[in-house]
This record gives sequence, structure tokens and C-alpha cells, in this order.
Amino acid sequence: MPSIPLTTPTARYDIVIGSGLLRTLFPRLCKLSNGKPFRPFIVTSPEIWELWSKSILASFPEPPTVLFLPSGEAHKRLASVEALAQQLATAGADRDSLLLALGGGVIGDITGFLAAIYMRGIPYVQLPSTLLAQVDSSIGGKTGVNLVAGKNLIGSFHHPLAVFADTDLLGTLPSAELRSGLQESVKAAIIRNPRLFRYLEQNSQAVLAGDADALTRVVAASVRVKADVVSQDELESGLRMILNFGHTIGHAIESATKYKQLLHGQAVGWGSIAAAHLSLSRGAITQNEFDRMVNLILLYGPLPAFTAKAAKLVELTGSDKKKRSGRRAFVLTTGIGSTEVVYDVTDAELLAATESMLARMQQVTSKPSARSRKK
Amino acid sequence: MPSIPLTTPTARYDIVIGSGLLRTLFPRLCKLSNGKPFRPFIVTSPEIWELWSKSILASFPEPPTVLFLPSGEAHKRLASVEALAQQLATAGADRDSLLLALGGGVIGDITGFLAAIYMRGIPYVQLPSTLLAQVDSSIGGKTGVNLVAGKNLIGSFHHPLAVFADTDLLGTLPSAELRSGLQESVKAAIIRNPRLFRYLEQNSQAVLAGDADALTRVVAASVRVKADVVSQDELESGLRMILNFGHTIGHAIESATKYKQLLHGQAVGWGSIAAAHLSLSRGAITQNEFDRMVNLILLYGPLPAFTAKAAKLVELTGSDKKKRSGRRAFVLTTGIGSTEVVYDVTDAELLAATESMLARMQQVTSKPSARSRKK
Ligand SMILES: NC(=O)c1ccc[n+]([C@@H]2O[C@H](COP(=O)([O-])OP(=O)(O)OC[C@H]3O[C@@H](n4cnc5c(N)ncnc54)[C@H](O)[C@@H]3O)[C@@H](O)[C@H]2O)c1
Ligand SMILES: NC(=O)c1ccc[n+]([C@@H]2O[C@H](COP(=O)([O-])OP(=O)(O)OC[C@H]3O[C@@H](n4cnc5c(N)ncnc54)[C@H](O)[C@@H]3O)[C@@H](O)[C@H]2O)c1
Ligand SMILES: [Zn+2]
Ligand SMILES: [Zn+2]
Repeated sequence: MPSIPLTTPTARYDIVIGSGLLRTLFPRLCKLSNGKPFRPFIVTSPEIWELWSKSILASFPEPPTVLFLPSGEAHKRLASVEALAQQLATAGADRDSLLLALGGGVIGDITGFLAAIYMRGIPYVQLPSTLLAQVDSSIGGKTGVNLVAGKNLIGSFHHPLAVFADTDLLGTLPSAELRSGLQESVKAAIIRNPRLFRYLEQNSQAVLAGDADALTRVVAASVRVKADVVSQDELESGLRMILNFGHTIGHAIESATKYKQLLHGQAVGWGSIAAAHLSLSRGAITQNEFDRMVNLILLYGPLPAFTAKAAKLVELTGSDKKKRSGRRAFVLTTGIGSTEVVYDVTDAELLAATESMLARMQQVTSKPSARSRKK
Repeated sequence: MPSIPLTTPTARYDIVIGSGLLRTLFPRLCKLSNGKPFRPFIVTSPEIWELWSKSILASFPEPPTVLFLPSGEAHKRLASVEALAQQLATAGADRDSLLLALGGGVIGDITGFLAAIYMRGIPYVQLPSTLLAQVDSSIGGKTGVNLVAGKNLIGSFHHPLAVFADTDLLGTLPSAELRSGLQESVKAAIIRNPRLFRYLEQNSQAVLAGDADALTRVVAASVRVKADVVSQDELESGLRMILNFGHTIGHAIESATKYKQLLHGQAVGWGSIAAAHLSLSRGAITQNEFDRMVNLILLYGPLPAFTAKAAKLVELTGSDKKKRSGRRAFVLTTGIGSTEVVYDVTDAELLAATESMLARMQQVTSKPSARSRKK
């Protein structure tokens, strides 16, 4: 089973990926805690618990306490953290406790943050249950919640003791969530892994059908990209920025559509197409590389259409945290598997790239789809 | 002006103490930020701002944004942190912001925690305005808020860029708050500084009258004790425990009286007397040392009487965070300026010491006071 190390100045842990991990969870936790006694608390949503409690409980000699969070981004707030902390305190949880975050990115971010601030920090383990959480949000130690004023404005860096990504969990995930998460794998391939890129081109059927080997391979390769980057730049002062490929316009799209119309990965898919256009217009990639990138992104679609003016989207990138002290960092692709952060992208360039992306959207989404053609 | 360095594996900063510091605040902040532009936000209470805004504003070329918190322990909650974070976000605060915590321990703990988690960490400076905050809470990087289930259960370690303790601020502090805070100085003297102990014995009039030189000397010596201890044990794994001298029974008293009857320092005063009794009964200190300790504690009183059974107080120490995995750490004094952490204190010993303390309370508080005798 692939086990990928992440090493930063402050933490060192493994991300283990594969099928059947949950069924051996308890002995794995015992190993992690080096024989010291620990008290496990599972944080999850009622829906996920309903689907997966049996597999989880199978390995525990005594059932651990389960704390529930309603699912959905709307609950990624300090009030949820306080409610959970209050439950921990009432149950007498102290520094010997171990939190287990069983869920997607929302539960992972909340639980990680809870672990960061309960009694000034207790350990936790990530059990990511969405593809996005397995390849992205569970890795790297960023935890946090939203404010009304903006997403992820409150948080801490707090690494888990380990990440156990059981690919079986993806079996109950709605297909749109799986495909959306795969856009982060496509991103990982574009910025740093040409082999993963080819694998995704050639094995889309197996991957989308949820084949265990194919998923393990894709998740592991994607995780390796993120773990590598984070190991070199824990606190996002440089290299870690390349993980934002496709996210400048992607975040603008999410904001323009009020986070309601598109899943995150879908917005990132469109954003990646815009970034590829900009890279092409600068001569950073060839027409052929550009075509392969766009095709791969659309292969893991469909990406739903949305309505927004290019100028509006460019304007929305202005409020982006990535624009600091007047300089906007932009992640270009310079070939399949390579990337460069530049600071001289003008609003005009961004506008042209966004317009090209919107034109492509017209083309793609006005085509009668395979299904409707069959009728 | 005394400037005391604090050095831990993760932080290095100075605690500057003296009269007139506030009036030169802005140039001091500029120095701290090494010429990089920064955006100051003051967090304080309306009462403190009313008293001290003029002195603060005097040094600023442009008035900084002021964010208000109602005063009082009841507001040391996540809801306050969220409200402040929301105000920061609305004002466009980013990582170039600098928070200034102007207030007592409540404002210091909240602001430090806000700085720890806003955008995963921004810098802040402590401007402690109570004696307790100057000698204790502003130093050491512990930040946090309360839960309904208990005090300080949510928090982070996040050190300030600097602490500027202007002793002038103490001029408007109610006398009971000053005396209460001085119990932490007495504690510092007992555990680690015989010279400070003698100074406090011989100069109580000047100290209690608020003489600038006397206060600067006492604050600086107390800060040195805490900064020293924290420099050697940032994360409270060992030595830092000695700062809890008097706090085992002290916390039990606060809990028994529902945090309403006594100020923290007053409870610590009684707790220190109990700890001195326990140390005496173990033969760790002489009768003469014991007498000098109790006299010094009472010199900075009056410590108000309260009603609680000794057995109840001992019971309440059981829920104390200091009792881990069955072993209760207890801080003994082994002479004026020296201390030892032991793990074998029995409930019976603790009960006897608490009873002796309560008996002393009867004695001290049933005596007609100087004032009532004059009538
Ligand atoms: N910390 C980071 O570094 C980081 C990185 C990227 C994204 N994020 C955060 O991640 C969040 C998005 O995560 P997400 O996409 O996983 O969304 P999510 O956590 O909301 O999960 C999506 C949906 O899938 C359901 N679900 C989860 N696992 C399931 C399973 N195995 N079977 C069936 N249904 C399941 C959930 O209940 C939910 O309805 C955002 O809040 C984002 O800010 C964080
Ligand atoms: N972080 C730590 O390491 C640490 C250590 C010890 C205590 N604490 C915390 O500190 C808090 C207690 O702090 P505190 O005793 O300073 O209480 P506080 O902050 O509530 O202040 C006491 C009172 O004095 C008023 N005040 C403050 N400065 C004044 C001034 N210059 N003039 C007039 N009035 C003024 C305040 O408005 C308040 O009413 C507790 O919450 C405790 O948990 C933290
Ligand atoms: Zn993303
Ligand atoms: Zn104290």
C-alpha cells in the first residue's frame, strides 16, 4: 500500500493510501501512539456515519465516542468548533485524546482546527472520505473555518499524526463529487507530474468507474505532488503557490456564482483552462500541450456552464488574497508537468484568457451531449 | 528602562517596562517592523480607551483603527473573537496588520488568540494595562478563551512581537486590582527571587502608593522570573509548572466561589498560604521562612474571606488540569526563592494544609480592621 512521507521543519508523518484501510484502523492508531494509551473521538456527519460506521467500528475493541457535525460548507464556522469543543470538554477529553476526522474537506478542516485549539493543541488523524480531501485538503496542515466576510479567514497550521485515505470510501461518493475532486489530480499532473498526466489520459474509464487500483494510483500520485511541495514550503512563502494553478480564475468563478452553482473542482477546471490560455498566449506552452491539457480537463467533466462576464471575473481576482502589495502572483504552466510563478500578468492578459475560456465554454456546452444525441 | 528578553525555540522578543512608554509607542512599533509598512489595529475596551486614548494617539501620525470589546471575563469567548475577526476582515486587514492589545489579561488573551488564528496568524503586540497582565498574562505566548465547560479550554501558543508594559497605566487601576496582581509578584519572589522578596517586604508603602520607580522595579523583577522560566520551558512540559505555585488550591477557591467573590490574585494569595502550610508540614521550609511568606502575602492584602469546606476545595483540585493520568503535580516551596515539583502529595496532606489556611483566614479576618478600631 503506498505510504507517502511528508516532512516539514515542524512535522513528519505519512499519508497511507489504499483499499481496506479502515478495517485495520485501530491497530494503525495504536502504532502511531507508540503504545501510549489514547482516547479516540470520531468527528463525522450523520450521513457518512450511516454509510461507514460498520467498517470503522470493526477494528475497535470498544466503540469510540462519535461527535456529529451537520454536513455542508455552511457549517464550517466557529460555532461548530465551539459546539464540538464543548462536547469534548463535557466528555472529559484531555491531551490524551485523539480526534479522527472522518469526512470530506469540510469535516477535515473543522476537526483539524478543533484539534489545533482545544487545550492549545491535541493530536488528530485525517480519514478523508472525498477525492478532494484525499488528494488535497487532508494534506499539508492547513486547518480552519469561514467568516461571513470570507472563506478560510480563521485557521491554524496544525498537521495530523497521519492521513489514512481509504479509497473504498470513494465508492459511495456522488459521481459529480468524484469528478470534481479529480480536477485537483489533473492540476497536480499539469504542474508537476507528466506520468500522472499520461495515466489520466489513458485510464479515464477505470478511474471514473472507481476501479480500486486505478484510484489508488491516481490518489497516490496526486498526494505525492502535494506532499512534495508542502515538504519544501510549509508556510506558503513560495513554492506552495504553484498548488494554486487554475485557482485565480477558479476562485473568481466561485465568488461570481456565490459558491452555489459549481463544485470547487469544477470551478478550478474552468480556471485551469483560463490559465492554460494565458500560458499559451505567452508562448509558455505549445498548441499541442494546450490541447492535451484542455482535453484532459474536459475528459473529467462535464464542467457545468455558468453565466458571468469576463470583466467581472477579472475584477473579482483583485480581492484575491494572492494579490499582495500590488503584485499579483499568477501560476503559469510551462509545459506538461512544469510551472512558473510570475508577477507581471496584466489585467488585459487575464481578461483575454478569461474570454477565451468563456468562448470555449460556449462551444463545449452548446454541443448536444452524448446522452441527448442518443434519444 | 528595563528590557527583558524572552527566548524560546520559536520566538525571541523583549518585554520593555517603564513609565512613559505609551507616548513613544509608534516609533517603537516602526523599529519592531524593521521599516516594513504595517497597519495597526488597537483592541481595547471603551473604559480603557476613555482613560488612555490621548497618550496612545499622541505618537501616531494617523489615528489607528480601534476595535472595542466589552470588559470582563464573561466576554472571553469565541463569539468575541469572531466578532473582532469579522471587523478585521471588513476593514480589509491582511498579513501586514499588527494588532495592539491594550488592556488586562482578558483583552490580552483574546487579542493574542485572534492574532493566532486570523488568516492563520498575524503579528501582535501586548500593551498590558493591569498589574496581573504586566507581570503574568502578557508574557509567554499563551492565548485563548473560555468555554462554558471551563476556563481557557480553547487557545494557542502565539507569542507577541514585543510587550510594552507602561507602569503609568497602573495609575488608574482600582486598588484591589493592583493588590491582587501583586500576589503574582509575591509568588514570583517565593519561587525564584529572594531579592524581590526582600524588596517587597521593605517597600510595600511605595509599591502600594504606585511610586513609578518601585513599580518598575517590582514589575521588572517579576517579569524576569516568568520570562526566564518560559525561555527554558515554552510548552509547559516541566519547569513552567512552578509558575503554578499557589494555584492548585487557588483555582479550587475560584471554582468554589464561582469566580465571583475573589479576584484571581486574592484566590492565589490564599492558595499560596495553603501551599506554604504543606511545605512547612513536610519540613521543606523553616517556621521563620513560613512566617515571612504568610506575612508578605497578607501585607499585599487584604485577602477577602470566603466560605468553603476544606474537603470541597480538595475535591475541586481533582478536576484540575494539573492532575494527569492519576499523578497530581504539586509545587512546594523549599525556601524563599526556591521550589520543587512533587507528585506524591496525598489528599490527606492537601486537606490538612487547606484546613490550616482556613483557620488562618478565621484569625486574620475576624480581627477588627485598623479602620474599624479607629472609630
Ligand atoms: N485544508 C486545505 O488545505 C484545503 C484544501 C482544499 C479545500 N479545502 C476545503 O475543503 C472543503 C471542500 O471539501 P469537499 O469537497 O470534500 O466537500 P465536503 O466535505 O463538503 O464533502 C462533499 C459532500 O460529500 C459528502 N461525502 C463525503 N464523503 C462521502 C462519502 N464517502 N460517501 C458519500 N458522501 C460523502 C459530504 O457529506 C458532502 O455532502 C472546502 O471547505 C475547502 O475550503 C481545504
Ligand atoms: N495568558 C496567560 O498566560 C494568563 C496568565 C494569567 C492570567 N490570564 C488571564 O488573565 C485574565 C485576568 O486578567 P486581569 O486580571 O488583567 O483582568 P481584566 O483583564 O478583566 O482586567 C481587570 C479590570 O481592570 C480594568 N482595567 C484594565 N486596565 C485598567 C487600567 N489601566 N485602568 C483602569 N481599569 C483598568 C478592566 O477593564 C477590568 O475591569 C483571566 O482571563 C486569566 O485567565 C492569562
Ligand atoms: Zn482547490
Ligand atoms: Zn495566576
